[in-house]
Amino acid sequence: MSSPRKLRYAMVGGGHGAFIGAVHRKAMALDGQFELVAGALSSSPERARASGAELGLADDRNHGSWQDLLADELRRPAHERIDLVSIVTPNHVHHPVALAFVQAGFNVVCDKPLVHTSAQADELVAAVTKAGTVFGVTYNYTGYPMVREARYLVHSGALGTLRKITVEYNQGWLATAVEEGGANKQADWRLDPARSGAVGTMGDIGSHAENLAATVTGQHPAWVCADLTTFGAGRQLDDDAQLLLRYDSGARGFIVASQVAAGLENDLRLQVSGTLGTITWRQEEPNQLIHSPVDGPRRILTRGSPWLSPAALQAGRIPAGHPEAFIEAFANVYLGVAADIRARQAGTAPDPLHADYPRVEDGARGVRFIERVLASAASEQKWTAVG
Amino acid sequence: MSSPRKLRYAMVGGGHGAFIGAVHRKAMALDGQFELVAGALSSSPERARASGAELGLADDRNHGSWQDLLADELRRPAHERIDLVSIVTPNHVHHPVALAFVQAGFNVVCDKPLVHTSAQADELVAAVTKAGTVFGVTYNYTGYPMVREARYLVHSGALGTLRKITVEYNQGWLATAVEEGGANKQADWRLDPARSGAVGTMGDIGSHAENLAATVTGQHPAWVCADLTTFGAGRQLDDDAQLLLRYDSGARGFIVASQVAAGLENDLRLQVSGTLGTITWRQEEPNQLIHSPVDGPRRILTRGSPWLSPAALQAGRIPAGHPEAFIEAFANVYLGVAADIRARQAGTAPDPLHADYPRVEDGARGVRFIERVLASAASEQKWTAVG
Amino acid sequence: MSSPRKLRYAMVGGGHGAFIGAVHRKAMALDGQFELVAGALSSSPERARASGAELGLADDRNHGSWQDLLADELRRPAHERIDLVSIVTPNHVHHPVALAFVQAGFNVVCDKPLVHTSAQADELVAAVTKAGTVFGVTYNYTGYPMVREARYLVHSGALGTLRKITVEYNQGWLATAVEEGGANKQADWRLDPARSGAVGTMGDIGSHAENLAATVTGQHPAWVCADLTTFGAGRQLDDDAQLLLRYDSGARGFIVASQVAAGLENDLRLQVSGTLGTITWRQEEPNQLIHSPVDGPRRILTRGSPWLSPAALQAGRIPAGHPEAFIEAFANVYLGVAADIRARQAGTAPDPLHADYPRVEDGARGVRFIERVLASAASEQKWTAVG
Amino acid sequence: MSSPRKLRYAMVGGGHGAFIGAVHRKAMALDGQFELVAGALSSSPERARASGAELGLADDRNHGSWQDLLADELRRPAHERIDLVSIVTPNHVHHPVALAFVQAGFNVVCDKPLVHTSAQADELVAAVTKAGTVFGVTYNYTGYPMVREARYLVHSGALGTLRKITVEYNQGWLATAVEEGGANKQADWRLDPARSGAVGTMGDIGSHAENLAATVTGQHPAWVCADLTTFGAGRQLDDDAQLLLRYDSGARGFIVASQVAAGLENDLRLQVSGTLGTITWRQEEPNQLIHSPVDGPRRILTRGSPWLSPAALQAGRIPAGHPEAFIEAFANVYLGVAADIRARQAGTAPDPLHADYPRVEDGARGVRFIERVLASAASEQKWTAVG
Repeated sequence: MSSPRKLRYAMVGGGHGAFIGAVHRKAMALDGQFELVAGALSSSPERARASGAELGLADDRNHGSWQDLLADELRRPAHERIDLVSIVTPNHVHHPVALAFVQAGFNVVCDKPLVHTSAQADELVAAVTKAGTVFGVTYNYTGYPMVREARYLVHSGALGTLRKITVEYNQGWLATAVEEGGANKQADWRLDPARSGAVGTMGDIGSHAENLAATVTGQHPAWVCADLTTFGAGRQLDDDAQLLLRYDSGARGFIVASQVAAGLENDLRLQVSGTLGTITWRQEEPNQLIHSPVDGPRRILTRGSPWLSPAALQAGRIPAGHPEAFIEAFANVYLGVAADIRARQAGTAPDPLHADYPRVEDGARGVRFIERVLASAASEQKWTAVG
Repeated sequence: MSSPRKLRYAMVGGGHGAFIGAVHRKAMALDGQFELVAGALSSSPERARASGAELGLADDRNHGSWQDLLADELRRPAHERIDLVSIVTPNHVHHPVALAFVQAGFNVVCDKPLVHTSAQADELVAAVTKAGTVFGVTYNYTGYPMVREARYLVHSGALGTLRKITVEYNQGWLATAVEEGGANKQADWRLDPARSGAVGTMGDIGSHAENLAATVTGQHPAWVCADLTTFGAGRQLDDDAQLLLRYDSGARGFIVASQVAAGLENDLRLQVSGTLGTITWRQEEPNQLIHSPVDGPRRILTRGSPWLSPAALQAGRIPAGHPEAFIEAFANVYLGVAADIRARQAGTAPDPLHADYPRVEDGARGVRFIERVLASAASEQKWTAVG
Repeated sequence: MSSPRKLRYAMVGGGHGAFIGAVHRKAMALDGQFELVAGALSSSPERARASGAELGLADDRNHGSWQDLLADELRRPAHERIDLVSIVTPNHVHHPVALAFVQAGFNVVCDKPLVHTSAQADELVAAVTKAGTVFGVTYNYTGYPMVREARYLVHSGALGTLRKITVEYNQGWLATAVEEGGANKQADWRLDPARSGAVGTMGDIGSHAENLAATVTGQHPAWVCADLTTFGAGRQLDDDAQLLLRYDSGARGFIVASQVAAGLENDLRLQVSGTLGTITWRQEEPNQLIHSPVDGPRRILTRGSPWLSPAALQAGRIPAGHPEAFIEAFANVYLGVAADIRARQAGTAPDPLHADYPRVEDGARGVRFIERVLASAASEQKWTAVG
Repeated sequence: MSSPRKLRYAMVGGGHGAFIGAVHRKAMALDGQFELVAGALSSSPERARASGAELGLADDRNHGSWQDLLADELRRPAHERIDLVSIVTPNHVHHPVALAFVQAGFNVVCDKPLVHTSAQADELVAAVTKAGTVFGVTYNYTGYPMVREARYLVHSGALGTLRKITVEYNQGWLATAVEEGGANKQADWRLDPARSGAVGTMGDIGSHAENLAATVTGQHPAWVCADLTTFGAGRQLDDDAQLLLRYDSGARGFIVASQVAAGLENDLRLQVSGTLGTITWRQEEPNQLIHSPVDGPRRILTRGSPWLSPAALQAGRIPAGHPEAFIEAFANVYLGVAADIRARQAGTAPDPLHADYPRVEDGARGVRFIERVLASAASEQKWTAVG
């Protein structure tokens, strides 16, 4: 068997000082399936080119703007052209870039929250449908093998009928006024409505919470009751979100997300209870999933154990007890995208076991959910319909 | 120094098959400060007397009804009379018994939730005020030394200005239809509105959650938005509660309490965040309190460590690393009551360090809070005022 | 059913300032099965009587010496006489007191290590055999319900053939020179060979380690290779012990015990591996036992769960999730003694489920083991036979 | 700033079915500093070439033997030639390959245990010294950022004078007869003395334990007392090792390593105590280091926290709370090697902060230690000198 060639990718955003761009690149490098061949790594042409040079881009594929990148790609012959573009810019740039590349027929991976408005989201979904391209959204926490095991347990019926679906996501990095002075590039754009969107914490990490719950349970809230709060003086966006949820199935749940939980790091927790048991997963200890059945001892399921589901096993690389973590989970999203791209390039049906990644529709649903959260937060009524 | 005599107590309720009565007795026995001398241990006279005999009560102090107990005590000379009565009946009996003993001048300890209605609660508070007696409510979780350390940290300013106050309390014992057949005495009365009151889970464990948050933070919610759910088929009371909270200080919070979290045991968690840090405490690992300051490493504070506050240290019995647990915490509530009774008997001011226990006013506030939760749950408005 | 009367006990040692005496009294008080009626609470007659008065002893049963206590008890009629004596003195007093009371026909509970020499131990075992009395040794860690579950798992074959038996017991309280100045009464006598015996840490906590391993596995080491170390300047006894062990069954193991593990509290851990799995228990989190089978997910067994063995269930008082701890485990040793005493008083065979406590033979075996450890530590040969 | 070119590497071993070769490749890919350009991926020429093809090696650099690889490299001009070779074969192949490449002037990374005998080790050290090449040994656990923080804490004096140095390393994968039938390639060669060397578990994971203790403390045992056991029927090598250790500094310690701890995964733990405190690290939860000072609360140090040492911070990629794990730690060893290679290529002194990796001397010390362990295990004398 000869090696499949690496998939060629371009990156938009992710230049100097960006946090998440480097994570995407490491995740894509890890398994040897991708190579970076082109980029427009910043909205500043100078910074873009300097960043691209550092990453070893050839001069003729190191662009000052995403428009130049797109134009150049379209000029190139198929065997040189990128297989996908990875969009890791601040949120407000997602929509134009993603739409343009999709409409030009390129496969896309885009960071979350997908776009600012549901109108943009609908437009993008329609464009992807029309173009028939692959479109992944980096809800990276769903790439953790034990999240996939959680999804499996729910879908296999091990928990019975679901009753409670809860996600808590606490960070502390906005507990102090880190945005002052502008040195913290993350804080700078994430707290700016023009670039971040109409929500702050709800978009940055609340969107992960929504997607995590939906991915694991396959259920989407029908009603939300939201309280968004801004604790940091002078901020224009929420830095704390508390949501009660009702599901059409009768299940109840909540999402709480805070970036002012001083001293906490990245404390994302999922808990799902059904008539037969409860599962609990914590992102900071991601190699284990705790399953508390109603009729027997608690079980600690660990990544790599042979009794896990195929979906969880295929998402791991090394034996149990040799922990995998954030970058590996991130890489799993990209591996899912790669499997889909390769299948389409080969003209075959993608294997769902491997082509396992969040899609444009998941991103769009997240955007609509955020809009309903905003509506609820502004309302005097207890419950606001979702979807 | 000669030994202080043991305080004499009577118990109302707590006969055969009761869970919590035996816990009260063990808690009172632990430190050698109390002796059981009288009782009316069941609403059934036969069961009451049989239970009393088993506990070694003298025949003339082993009564078939609390009315007989009260009448008998009033007939006795002071040196024989009980120093306090402990009321551990189902909820609906709390009010008449507590009121009668208070009005007769007896010190009382009563289980939670205190009474069914705020009118009853107000009446009881007024009676206690008039009688000048000691009245403790067994919000036993506040007896844990590390909860007292949590309270100390908040009040000392170690967390700065509070922003988030959250309590989660998940149990799974009502996940299945344990009430069927009537063999589970706990489930039988706790799910019966006539005996349990207008709420189920919200009263049984939600009341603990409210009190724990209030005790540690000294703050009380101004607004509540509640969703109460009944999952168990045929049940008349909620078995799940989700509350969003707003405080006048600007803090936000939530309480979630469930007894259908299948497979979970007694998973009570408190988390409080302020501008300077976050504290986290779990009842199932009660000897430690986790403190995450905003500017340094996480600290695990452990019961018995010499650097704890006096309030936490005086609530412990044995060195750090030798765990104390539920019964010891329960006993601390009684030790607080004992300190107050002894001080009053001696005509001295109680030492607040030792006379540290939840009072009738705390119980009354809990009852009013439950009423506001019910009002919110029945309302279409998002926020219902509390207090 | 009428109540069984409380068992009357006397205490030798445990006066002012003693740590462990108060623990014994709380443990005995907890379940209402014992009452303290007599004592000789210190080797100083004045301190003994002052301590007894504080504990409410009647003047005529509050003695200045254990000899007076014994003489007085022998003078009393059976219905007044103590049912047992609890010996909680420094180690060097155990032997004369225990022997005298046994020879006089009294039931005894004695702290560990039992006595200083195997000759003393043999003498005591012979005396107990001759007298036919109950003799318990407070290896209190074996009173933990989850230790009993561990014992059950081993004996039920759940671990297969045992291969590794390891106990680690780390404390830090002797990391600094706490014995200087004499204010630390514990350190004062425990580091004095005349009162503590020929070993320090090996006797104080190493003896617990030996007994815990033996209780859970039913196996006793055949060979030991020991390294005893004294880290604290000027100390005459070891404050650190490291032992390699070989068992006749082919199993291997080790015991390490240290009291200079600075910053650690009471970190006692047991791990036993067999061909089918491994169990792990930590004293600082005593309500859970971790079972890692070779062919399935790790299981967390929790105290009070209905699927535990009868031996573990009967050793608990309250439901799962409501933690029990050190004093409750201690109390379980006394409950075992009480069950045995009551059975003998009733002329019936004790129920082994309830009469579950460490016996004089266990204490004697511990003393012999310590002697072999000392022999090994002094030898140039690698392995020293045990037993 | 332009990008530094990727370092070109060849791999010897690591073909189809090998576990560790793939880990090396992922670790080298992660940070974009290396590219695989050549290989001799198996001792079977056919398997070697098939494996190389799968990895995308050009035909003229995809060799059937390491001898061919070496000869070919020597023929190539400098700008094509590999910057280093990574040797990931079974142990018995390490020595000839490493020696040949070093003598030819190539930089080498070699798996552990380095070689079979101390004579081979000495020869290799001498060759490296003579050639002046870079030689790294993949004691990968020392690449964990929190291990580097542990080393920092020891060296900064935070623990005072060291007293106890302990490593436990328990795995369960050899608890059953996985070697039967030959399907488990790992078990097949690791239990074969011809390929694995004179020790089994002691070499495979005991060598990690020795290196971890040495790296963190900077101390090497002066005396060892060892017990090696073979539990698996028919095995020729130990599958369990227990070692007592004495250090010239007066410290004591132990290493226990087992591969028959049924049900355990990769449970490597380090604990170091000094006069001022204790640190504890567990490989299965690698992002935290627990520091228990003698005079204050326990602290949980977490990877990525700004208050860590430069050595720990530079070894991390992403913020605290976003866990890194095994592959990232492995990659850190390679980053250290890369820093050293680049510095030498640039003719500058390597920055010790970045050129932080285990060297040939560390590997040689490990080989000598194993020999002394074997001598001790075979001796009747208690203590065998090391070094």
